[in-house]
Amino acid sequence: MTDKLQNQLKFLAIADGMKQVYRQTMLLDGSRYENDAEHSWHFALMAMTLFEYCALDGVCIDRVVKMAIVHDLIEIYAGDTPAQDIAANAGKEDREREAADRLFALLPEEQANEYRSLWEEFDAMNTPDAIYASAIDRFQSFYLIHLSGTGSAWVKFNATAKRVRTRVLPVKTAIPSLRQWIEDAIDINVEKGFLKQG
Amino acid sequence: MTDKLQNQLKFLAIADGMKQVYRQTMLLDGSRYENDAEHSWHFALMAMTLFEYCALDGVCIDRVVKMAIVHDLIEIYAGDTPAQDIAANAGKEDREREAADRLFALLPEEQANEYRSLWEEFDAMNTPDAIYASAIDRFQSFYLIHLSGTGSAWVKFNATAKRVRTRVLPVKTAIPSLRQWIEDAIDINVEKGFLKQG
Repeated sequence: MTDKLQNQLKFLAIADGMKQVYRQTMLLDGSRYENDAEHSWHFALMAMTLFEYCALDGVCIDRVVKMAIVHDLIEIYAGDTPAQDIAANAGKEDREREAADRLFALLPEEQANEYRSLWEEFDAMNTPDAIYASAIDRFQSFYLIHLSGTGSAWVKFNATAKRVRTRVLPVKTAIPSLRQWIEDAIDINVEKGFLKQG
Repeated sequence: MTDKLQNQLKFLAIADGMKQVYRQTMLLDGSRYENDAEHSWHFALMAMTLFEYCALDGVCIDRVVKMAIVHDLIEIYAGDTPAQDIAANAGKEDREREAADRLFALLPEEQANEYRSLWEEFDAMNTPDAIYASAIDRFQSFYLIHLSGTGSAWVKFNATAKRVRTRVLPVKTAIPSLRQWIEDAIDINVEKGFLKQG
């Protein structure tokens, strides 16, 4: 076996760590927190299933699914940074860049560039593929937090309706069919006290 | 919101159940069993990462990744049937067909057909896409069981080296570069007593 293949297998073993990076969203039954591997899978399935409602031109669903698969890999080393945790977001960029350097170094150059570019494109959110991907990424969390009926991350980080509305803007842009449902869900969570007014 | 979209969202909520269908393979650190959502994600990443070693003609990696995402959905209702559990494999086919009828009924016809066809194609294993997908699916379990160093499913179901060799045949066909490594890994597990000789 070549060193190249050996390193790719090592990368795939390290990737197992995604199953132990826990997020701040709970499973629908509220029994435990979701991890990055589960989230990435659910994101991919949601992207496929809701694609017919995507209002953006030129989105390639195959690239979006690949983006879903690789978009959180760097968290194996950088950890999850919850969107509503303002303190943790300081330094996030440097932390994630260093993680990417370390993780993708195991892959042959072309593959490292492919995965890193997909992640950077997702993060920069300025191509149609990345906007649709971000919309689904954010909707996945929103949907779980809302349906689990526990408020989870929103309560923990004192989230406001305004902050959550800003967070879901890409969803409203990319998937207009979900706009009203999202507004209604935010109102319900404000009423329940899971989201602060304003 | 249309009934159609409402049902698709319901399907995506039911899909959350994949995170609670536990398999017989453990995480690499041996701390707990892996679930179907995690496995499907790892399978997709492995398919992408090892694609350059695929020796079959005409494989479309984008379809294989989609296959990875949907191939175990029916286990939300049918449960996981470990390959090495001979007793559990009786009735598997009927159980999974009924599960598919129930699960995919929530989706619009075209999408239901797309997901069901991907699963059936994967299961029948007679197209290049399905052979490569099966190879990766099986290698993912094999790799985890071997690296976790616990024997897990092999010990539990008294697996023999011969049965495991049959199980990994598609890996040897689709990814010849892994042949020798797999043979060596089987020998190591026989020596350790995790696999029965013969």
